[in-house]
Amino acid sequence: MEQHYSSDLFEHAVDEFSKLPGIGRKTALRMVLHVLRMDVNSVDAMTGAISRLRHDVKYCRVCHNISDVDVCQICSNPLRDSSTVCVVENIQDVMAIEATGQYRGLYHVLGGVISPVDGLGPSDLEIQSLVDRVGAGGVSEVILALGSTMEGDTTSFFISRKLARFDGLRLTMLARGLSVNDELQYTDEVTLGRSITNRVEFRVEM
Amino acid sequence: MEQHYSSDLFEHAVDEFSKLPGIGRKTALRMVLHVLRMDVNSVDAMTGAISRLRHDVKYCRVCHNISDVDVCQICSNPLRDSSTVCVVENIQDVMAIEATGQYRGLYHVLGGVISPVDGLGPSDLEIQSLVDRVGAGGVSEVILALGSTMEGDTTSFFISRKLARFDGLRLTMLARGLSVNDELQYTDEVTLGRSITNRVEFRVEM
Repeated sequence: MEQHYSSDLFEHAVDEFSKLPGIGRKTALRMVLHVLRMDVNSVDAMTGAISRLRHDVKYCRVCHNISDVDVCQICSNPLRDSSTVCVVENIQDVMAIEATGQYRGLYHVLGGVISPVDGLGPSDLEIQSLVDRVGAGGVSEVILALGSTMEGDTTSFFISRKLARFDGLRLTMLARGLSVNDELQYTDEVTLGRSITNRVEFRVEM
Repeated sequence: MEQHYSSDLFEHAVDEFSKLPGIGRKTALRMVLHVLRMDVNSVDAMTGAISRLRHDVKYCRVCHNISDVDVCQICSNPLRDSSTVCVVENIQDVMAIEATGQYRGLYHVLGGVISPVDGLGPSDLEIQSLVDRVGAGGVSEVILALGSTMEGDTTSFFISRKLARFDGLRLTMLARGLSVNDELQYTDEVTLGRSITNRVEFRVEM
Protein backbone atom coordinates (compact mmCIF):
# COMPACT_ATOMS: atom_id res chain seq x y z
CA MET A 1 0.00 0.00 0.00
CA GLU A 2 3.05 2.30 -0.21
CA GLN A 3 1.79 5.26 -2.17
CA HIS A 4 3.56 8.00 -4.00
CA TYR A 5 2.17 11.49 -3.49
CA SER A 6 2.71 14.46 -5.79
CA SER A 7 4.39 16.40 -2.97
CA ASP A 8 7.46 15.44 -0.96
CA LEU A 9 6.38 17.76 1.86
CA PHE A 10 3.12 15.85 1.97
CA GLU A 11 4.92 12.52 1.85
CA HIS A 12 7.28 13.44 4.68
CA ALA A 13 4.44 14.66 6.88
CA VAL A 14 2.57 11.38 6.34
CA ASP A 15 5.78 9.47 7.18
CA GLU A 16 6.25 11.42 10.40
CA PHE A 17 2.67 11.04 11.61
CA SER A 18 2.93 7.30 10.86
CA LYS A 19 5.69 7.02 13.45
CA LEU A 20 3.27 7.82 16.26
CA PRO A 21 1.98 4.78 18.17
CA GLY A 22 -1.14 3.20 16.66
CA ILE A 23 -1.11 5.48 13.61
CA GLY A 24 -1.09 3.73 10.25
CA ARG A 25 -0.60 5.45 6.90
CA LYS A 26 -4.34 5.92 6.34
CA THR A 27 -4.80 7.77 9.62
CA ALA A 28 -1.59 9.71 9.02
CA LEU A 29 -2.95 10.79 5.66
CA ARG A 30 -6.14 12.01 7.31
CA MET A 31 -4.08 13.98 9.81
CA VAL A 32 -2.02 15.57 7.05
CA LEU A 33 -5.15 16.63 5.16
CA HIS A 34 -6.45 18.08 8.42
CA VAL A 35 -3.21 20.02 8.98
CA LEU A 36 -3.52 21.48 5.48
CA ARG A 37 -6.93 22.89 6.42
CA MET A 38 -5.81 24.25 9.82
CA ASP A 39 -4.83 27.90 10.03
CA VAL A 40 -1.10 28.58 10.25
CA ASN A 41 -1.20 29.78 13.87
CA SER A 42 -2.87 26.58 15.05
CA VAL A 43 -0.27 24.47 13.27
CA ASP A 44 2.50 26.54 14.88
CA ALA A 45 0.84 26.07 18.29
CA MET A 46 0.75 22.31 17.75
CA THR A 47 4.33 21.87 16.55
CA GLY A 48 5.52 24.28 19.23
CA ALA A 49 3.82 22.34 22.03
CA ILE A 50 5.27 19.03 20.83
CA SER A 51 8.73 20.51 20.40
CA ARG A 52 8.75 22.27 23.81
CA LEU A 53 7.50 19.11 25.51
CA ARG A 54 10.52 17.17 24.35
CA HIS A 55 13.08 19.97 24.69
CA ASP A 56 12.03 21.55 27.96
CA VAL A 57 10.48 18.74 30.00
CA LYS A 58 12.00 18.13 33.43
CA TYR A 59 11.62 15.46 36.05
CA CYS A 60 10.97 16.36 39.69
CA ARG A 61 14.15 16.28 41.76
CA VAL A 62 12.25 14.70 44.68
CA CYS A 63 9.80 12.18 43.22
CA HIS A 64 11.02 11.93 39.56
CA ASN A 65 7.55 12.58 38.24
CA ILE A 66 7.31 14.69 35.07
CA SER A 67 7.42 18.41 35.90
CA ASP A 68 8.02 21.84 34.39
CA VAL A 69 10.02 22.95 37.40
CA ASP A 70 12.66 21.56 39.73
CA VAL A 71 10.17 20.26 42.28
CA CYS A 72 6.79 19.16 40.86
CA GLN A 73 3.37 20.57 41.67
CA ILE A 74 2.51 17.54 43.80
CA CYS A 75 5.67 17.57 45.93
CA SER A 76 5.46 21.33 46.47
CA ASN A 77 1.76 21.35 47.34
CA PRO A 78 1.47 22.14 51.09
CA LEU A 79 -2.01 20.58 51.20
CA ARG A 80 -0.65 17.13 50.42
CA ASP A 81 0.42 14.69 53.11
CA SER A 82 4.21 14.55 52.87
CA SER A 83 4.46 11.72 55.41
CA THR A 84 3.07 9.19 52.92
CA VAL A 85 5.02 8.19 49.82
CA CYS A 86 3.46 6.02 47.12
CA VAL A 87 6.05 4.12 45.07
CA VAL A 88 5.02 3.58 41.43
CA GLU A 89 6.64 2.28 38.27
CA ASN A 90 6.10 5.23 35.92
CA ILE A 91 4.39 8.59 35.35
CA GLN A 92 1.29 6.97 33.86
CA ASP A 93 0.76 5.27 37.23
CA VAL A 94 0.87 8.66 38.96
CA MET A 95 -1.79 9.90 36.54
CA ALA A 96 -3.94 6.80 37.12
CA ILE A 97 -3.84 7.22 40.91
CA GLU A 98 -4.38 10.99 40.70
CA ALA A 99 -7.41 10.34 38.49
CA THR A 100 -9.04 8.35 41.30
CA GLY A 101 -9.00 11.45 43.53
CA GLN A 102 -8.50 9.09 46.51
CA TYR A 103 -4.89 9.83 47.40
CA ARG A 104 -3.48 12.93 49.09
CA GLY A 105 0.11 11.84 49.73
CA LEU A 106 3.25 12.13 47.60
CA TYR A 107 4.82 9.81 45.01
CA HIS A 108 8.12 8.23 44.13
CA VAL A 109 8.52 7.21 40.48
CA LEU A 110 10.97 4.32 40.06
CA GLY A 111 11.25 4.58 36.28
CA GLY A 112 10.59 0.87 35.84
CA VAL A 113 10.60 -2.39 37.77
CA ILE A 114 13.37 -4.92 38.27
CA SER A 115 13.39 -7.08 35.15
CA PRO A 116 16.50 -9.11 34.35
CA VAL A 117 14.98 -10.03 30.95
CA ASP A 118 14.96 -6.34 30.00
CA GLY A 119 18.36 -5.78 31.60
CA LEU A 120 16.83 -3.61 34.33
CA GLY A 121 18.48 -4.02 37.73
CA PRO A 122 17.92 -2.13 41.00
CA SER A 123 20.67 0.39 40.16
CA ASP A 124 18.79 1.43 36.98
CA LEU A 125 15.80 2.48 39.07
CA GLU A 126 15.24 5.30 41.57
CA ILE A 127 15.51 2.96 44.54
CA GLN A 128 18.55 4.46 46.27
CA SER A 129 16.93 7.90 46.04
CA LEU A 130 13.86 6.44 47.75
CA VAL A 131 15.98 5.04 50.58
CA ASP A 132 17.73 8.42 50.94
CA ARG A 133 14.38 10.18 50.94
CA VAL A 134 13.01 7.98 53.74
CA GLY A 135 16.33 8.28 55.56
CA ALA A 136 16.02 12.08 55.54
CA GLY A 137 13.01 11.71 57.84
CA GLY A 138 9.41 12.84 57.80
CA VAL A 139 8.08 9.76 56.00
CA SER A 140 5.90 7.44 58.12
CA GLU A 141 4.38 5.25 55.40
CA VAL A 142 5.60 3.90 52.08
CA ILE A 143 2.95 2.38 49.81
CA LEU A 144 4.38 -0.13 47.34
CA ALA A 145 1.94 0.46 44.47
CA LEU A 146 3.51 -1.71 41.81
CA GLY A 147 1.68 -3.98 39.39
CA SER A 148 0.75 -7.47 40.60
CA THR A 149 3.23 -9.05 38.21
CA MET A 150 6.32 -11.12 38.99
CA GLU A 151 8.54 -8.11 38.26
CA GLY A 152 6.37 -5.86 40.42
CA ASP A 153 6.41 -8.32 43.30
CA THR A 154 10.19 -8.79 43.01
CA THR A 155 10.71 -5.03 43.08
CA SER A 156 8.38 -4.61 46.08
CA PHE A 157 10.28 -7.32 47.93
CA PHE A 158 13.64 -5.76 47.10
CA ILE A 159 12.50 -2.33 48.28
CA SER A 160 10.95 -3.76 51.46
CA ARG A 161 14.33 -5.26 52.36
CA LYS A 162 16.08 -1.95 51.71
CA LEU A 163 13.60 -0.09 53.93
CA ALA A 164 13.52 -2.70 56.71
CA ARG A 165 16.15 -0.82 58.71
CA PHE A 166 13.83 2.15 59.29
CA ASP A 167 12.11 1.42 62.61
CA GLY A 168 8.49 2.49 62.79
CA LEU A 169 8.14 2.94 59.01
CA ARG A 170 4.85 1.48 57.84
CA LEU A 171 5.11 -0.47 54.58
CA THR A 172 1.83 -1.10 52.75
CA MET A 173 0.73 -2.39 49.36
CA LEU A 174 -2.37 -2.01 47.22
CA ALA A 175 -5.34 -4.18 48.13
CA ARG A 176 -5.67 -7.22 45.89
CA GLY A 177 -8.82 -9.18 45.14
CA LEU A 178 -11.88 -8.94 42.95
CA SER A 179 -12.20 -5.94 40.67
CA VAL A 180 -15.34 -3.83 40.80
CA ASN A 181 -18.18 -5.69 39.04
CA ASP A 182 -16.22 -8.95 38.79
CA GLU A 183 -18.35 -12.07 38.62
CA LEU A 184 -16.94 -15.04 40.50
CA GLN A 185 -17.35 -17.52 37.67
CA TYR A 186 -15.23 -15.38 35.35
CA THR A 187 -12.51 -14.48 37.86
CA ASP A 188 -9.16 -16.23 37.40
CA GLU A 189 -8.54 -18.89 40.02
CA VAL A 190 -5.38 -17.34 41.46
CA THR A 191 -7.18 -14.04 42.17
CA LEU A 192 -10.20 -15.89 43.53
CA GLY A 193 -8.07 -18.18 45.72
CA ARG A 194 -6.16 -15.24 47.18
CA SER A 195 -9.38 -13.31 47.74
CA ILE A 196 -10.79 -16.14 49.83
CA THR A 197 -7.58 -16.66 51.79
CA ASN A 198 -7.20 -12.92 52.46
CA ARG A 199 -10.90 -12.31 53.19
CA VAL A 200 -11.72 -9.26 55.31
CA GLU A 201 -14.53 -8.20 57.67
CA PHE A 202 -17.75 -7.43 55.86
CA ARG A 203 -18.54 -3.75 55.54
CA VAL A 204 -20.93 -1.68 53.48
CA GLU A 205 -18.87 0.24 50.89
CA MET A 206 -19.53 3.95 50.57
CA MET B 1 -12.51 12.62 32.31
CA GLU B 2 -10.64 15.97 32.16
CA GLN B 3 -7.42 15.30 34.00
CA HIS B 4 -4.83 17.54 35.52
CA TYR B 5 -1.22 16.62 34.86
CA SER B 6 1.75 17.72 36.92
CA SER B 7 3.26 19.48 33.89
CA ASP B 8 1.74 22.24 31.78
CA LEU B 9 4.04 21.32 28.88
CA PHE B 10 2.61 17.83 29.09
CA GLU B 11 -0.94 19.13 29.33
CA HIS B 12 -0.52 21.42 26.31
CA ALA B 13 0.97 18.65 24.20
CA VAL B 14 -1.99 16.36 25.06
CA ASP B 15 -4.37 19.19 24.17
CA GLU B 16 -2.70 19.74 20.82
CA PHE B 17 -2.61 16.07 19.84
CA SER B 18 -6.31 15.84 20.81
CA LYS B 19 -7.14 18.36 18.09
CA LEU B 20 -6.13 15.90 15.37
CA PRO B 21 -9.06 14.07 13.75
CA GLY B 22 -10.08 10.86 15.50
CA ILE B 23 -7.65 11.40 18.39
CA GLY B 24 -9.20 11.39 21.87
CA ARG B 25 -7.39 12.34 25.07
CA LYS B 26 -6.37 8.74 25.81
CA THR B 27 -4.65 8.35 22.44
CA ALA B 28 -3.17 11.85 22.72
CA LEU B 29 -1.71 10.86 26.10
CA ARG B 30 -0.15 7.78 24.54
CA MET B 31 1.36 9.95 21.80
CA VAL B 32 2.80 12.37 24.33
CA LEU B 33 4.40 9.56 26.33
CA HIS B 34 5.83 8.27 23.04
CA VAL B 35 7.25 11.71 22.17
CA LEU B 36 8.94 11.83 25.60
CA ARG B 37 10.77 8.62 24.75
CA MET B 38 11.76 9.70 21.21
CA ASP B 39 15.20 11.17 20.71
CA VAL B 40 15.32 14.94 20.23
CA ASN B 41 16.32 14.76 16.55
CA SER B 42 13.33 12.58 15.68
CA VAL B 43 10.98 14.97 17.43
CA ASP B 44 12.52 17.89 15.55
CA ALA B 45 12.11 15.97 12.26
CA MET B 46 8.44 15.39 13.06
CA THR B 47 7.55 18.94 14.08
CA GLY B 48 9.63 20.29 11.18
CA ALA B 49 7.79 18.13 8.62
CA ILE B 50 4.37 19.19 9.95
CA SER B 51 5.36 22.84 10.07
CA ARG B 52 6.90 22.89 6.58
CA LEU B 53 3.87 21.08 5.15
CA ARG B 54 1.56 23.87 6.26
CA HIS B 55 3.93 26.77 5.59
CA ASP B 56 5.46 25.75 2.27
CA VAL B 57 2.79 23.68 0.51
CA LYS B 58 1.81 24.85 -2.97
CA TYR B 59 -0.93 23.90 -5.36
CA CYS B 60 -0.16 23.12 -9.02
CA ARG B 61 -0.83 26.10 -11.30
CA VAL B 62 -2.29 23.78 -13.95
CA CYS B 63 -4.33 21.12 -12.15
CA HIS B 64 -4.53 22.56 -8.57
CA ASN B 65 -3.31 19.31 -7.07
CA ILE B 66 -0.99 19.62 -4.07
CA SER B 67 2.60 20.19 -5.17
CA ASP B 68 5.99 21.38 -3.95
CA VAL B 69 6.62 23.28 -7.16
CA ASP B 70 4.72 25.53 -9.54
CA VAL B 71 3.65 22.69 -11.82
CA CYS B 72 3.14 19.32 -10.11
CA GLN B 73 4.99 16.06 -10.79
CA ILE B 74 2.00 14.63 -12.63
CA CYS B 75 1.43 17.61 -14.97
CA SER B 76 5.12 17.90 -15.76
CA ASN B 77 5.64 14.16 -16.39
CA PRO B 78 6.24 13.74 -20.17
CA LEU B 79 5.21 10.07 -19.95
CA ARG B 80 1.63 10.98 -19.01
CA ASP B 81 -1.10 11.49 -21.60
CA SER B 82 -1.78 15.22 -21.58
CA SER B 83 -4.77 14.88 -23.92
CA THR B 84 -6.90 13.33 -21.17
CA VAL B 85 -7.97 15.36 -18.12
CA CYS B 86 -9.73 13.70 -15.19
CA VAL B 87 -11.87 16.14 -13.16
CA VAL B 88 -12.02 15.31 -9.44
CA GLU B 89 -13.34 16.98 -6.30
CA ASN B 90 -10.19 17.02 -4.16
CA ILE B 91 -6.60 15.84 -3.72
CA GLN B 92 -7.68 12.65 -1.93
CA ASP B 93 -9.47 11.64 -5.13
CA VAL B 94 -6.23 12.12 -7.09
CA MET B 95 -4.48 9.84 -4.62
CA ALA B 96 -7.25 7.25 -4.83
CA ILE B 97 -7.10 7.11 -8.63
CA GLU B 98 -3.27 7.14 -8.66
CA ALA B 99 -3.33 4.22 -6.23
CA THR B 100 -5.24 2.11 -8.77
CA GLY B 101 -2.34 2.41 -11.23
CA GLN B 102 -4.93 2.37 -14.04
CA TYR B 103 -4.77 5.98 -15.21
CA ARG B 104 -2.01 7.70 -17.19
CA GLY B 105 -3.67 11.04 -18.01
CA LEU B 106 -3.68 14.32 -16.10
CA TYR B 107 -6.05 15.73 -13.46
CA HIS B 108 -8.05 18.84 -12.66
CA VAL B 109 -8.88 19.35 -8.98
CA LEU B 110 -12.07 21.39 -8.51
CA GLY B 111 -11.61 21.98 -4.77
CA GLY B 112 -15.16 20.82 -4.01
CA VAL B 113 -18.50 20.25 -5.72
CA ILE B 114 -21.43 22.60 -6.21
CA SER B 115 -23.37 22.54 -2.94
CA PRO B 116 -25.78 25.39 -2.18
CA VAL B 117 -26.25 24.02 1.36
CA ASP B 118 -22.55 24.58 2.04
CA GLY B 119 -22.57 27.89 0.17
CA LEU B 120 -20.38 26.47 -2.60
CA GLY B 121 -21.23 27.79 -6.05
CA PRO B 122 -19.50 27.27 -9.42
CA SER B 123 -17.37 30.40 -8.93
CA ASP B 124 -15.87 28.93 -5.73
CA LEU B 125 -14.52 25.98 -7.70
CA GLU B 126 -11.81 25.63 -10.33
CA ILE B 127 -14.35 25.35 -13.14
CA GLN B 128 -13.42 28.43 -15.17
CA SER B 129 -9.77 27.36 -15.09
CA LEU B 130 -10.87 23.96 -16.48
CA VAL B 131 -12.75 25.68 -19.31
CA ASP B 132 -9.69 27.84 -20.03
CA ARG B 133 -7.46 24.78 -19.96
CA VAL B 134 -9.60 22.92 -22.48
CA GLY B 135 -9.91 26.11 -24.53
CA ALA B 136 -6.12 26.35 -24.76
CA GLY B 137 -6.18 23.16 -26.84
CA GLY B 138 -4.53 19.75 -26.66
CA VAL B 139 -7.27 18.12 -24.57
CA SER B 140 -9.35 15.50 -26.37
CA GLU B 141 -11.13 13.87 -23.42
CA VAL B 142 -12.44 15.13 -20.09
CA ILE B 143 -13.40 12.47 -17.53
CA LEU B 144 -15.95 13.70 -14.99
CA ALA B 145 -14.83 11.60 -12.03
CA LEU B 146 -17.04 13.03 -9.31
CA GLY B 147 -18.88 11.08 -6.62
CA SER B 148 -22.26 9.59 -7.51
CA THR B 149 -24.02 12.01 -5.16
CA MET B 150 -26.55 14.70 -5.98
CA GLU B 151 -23.86 17.36 -5.65
CA GLY B 152 -21.46 15.38 -7.80
CA ASP B 153 -24.08 14.86 -10.49
CA THR B 154 -25.08 18.55 -10.42
CA THR B 155 -21.46 19.59 -10.79
CA SER B 156 -20.88 17.12 -13.66
CA PHE B 157 -23.95 18.47 -15.42
CA PHE B 158 -22.84 22.08 -14.93
CA ILE B 159 -19.36 21.34 -16.29
CA SER B 160 -20.73 19.37 -19.23
CA ARG B 161 -22.79 22.45 -20.25
CA LYS B 162 -19.72 24.68 -19.94
CA LEU B 163 -17.66 22.34 -22.12
CA ALA B 164 -20.40 21.69 -24.70
CA ARG B 165 -19.05 24.38 -27.01
CA PHE B 166 -15.81 22.48 -27.65
CA ASP B 167 -16.50 20.42 -30.79
CA GLY B 168 -14.92 16.99 -30.81
CA LEU B 169 -14.19 16.99 -27.08
CA ARG B 170 -15.06 13.63 -25.59
CA LEU B 171 -16.83 13.83 -22.22
CA THR B 172 -16.85 10.65 -20.14
CA MET B 173 -17.78 9.63 -16.60
CA LEU B 174 -16.82 6.77 -14.31
CA ALA B 175 -18.61 3.47 -14.86
CA ARG B 176 -21.40 2.87 -12.34
CA GLY B 177 -22.78 -0.45 -11.22
CA LEU B 178 -22.00 -3.27 -8.84
CA SER B 179 -18.81 -2.98 -6.81
CA VAL B 180 -16.31 -5.82 -6.87
CA ASN B 181 -17.61 -8.72 -4.75
CA ASP B 182 -21.09 -7.21 -4.36
CA GLU B 183 -23.84 -9.74 -3.75
CA LEU B 184 -27.10 -8.91 -5.48
CA GLN B 185 -29.28 -9.41 -2.42
CA TYR B 186 -27.28 -6.84 -0.45
CA THR B 187 -26.97 -4.24 -3.23
CA ASP B 188 -29.15 -1.15 -2.87
CA GLU B 189 -32.06 -1.12 -5.30
CA VAL B 190 -31.08 2.09 -7.10
CA THR B 191 -27.63 0.72 -7.95
CA LEU B 192 -29.11 -2.64 -8.91
CA GLY B 193 -31.83 -1.02 -11.04
CA ARG B 194 -29.31 1.11 -12.91
CA SER B 195 -26.96 -1.82 -13.36
CA ILE B 196 -29.72 -3.80 -15.11
CA THR B 197 -30.83 -0.86 -17.25
CA ASN B 198 -27.25 0.00 -18.24
CA ARG B 199 -26.13 -3.60 -18.72
CA VAL B 200 -23.14 -4.20 -21.02
CA GLU B 201 -21.87 -7.05 -23.24
CA PHE B 202 -20.51 -9.96 -21.26
CA ARG B 203 -16.74 -10.18 -21.21
CA VAL B 204 -14.21 -12.05 -19.13
CA GLU B 205 -12.42 -9.53 -16.91
CA MET B 206 -8.65 -9.69 -16.89
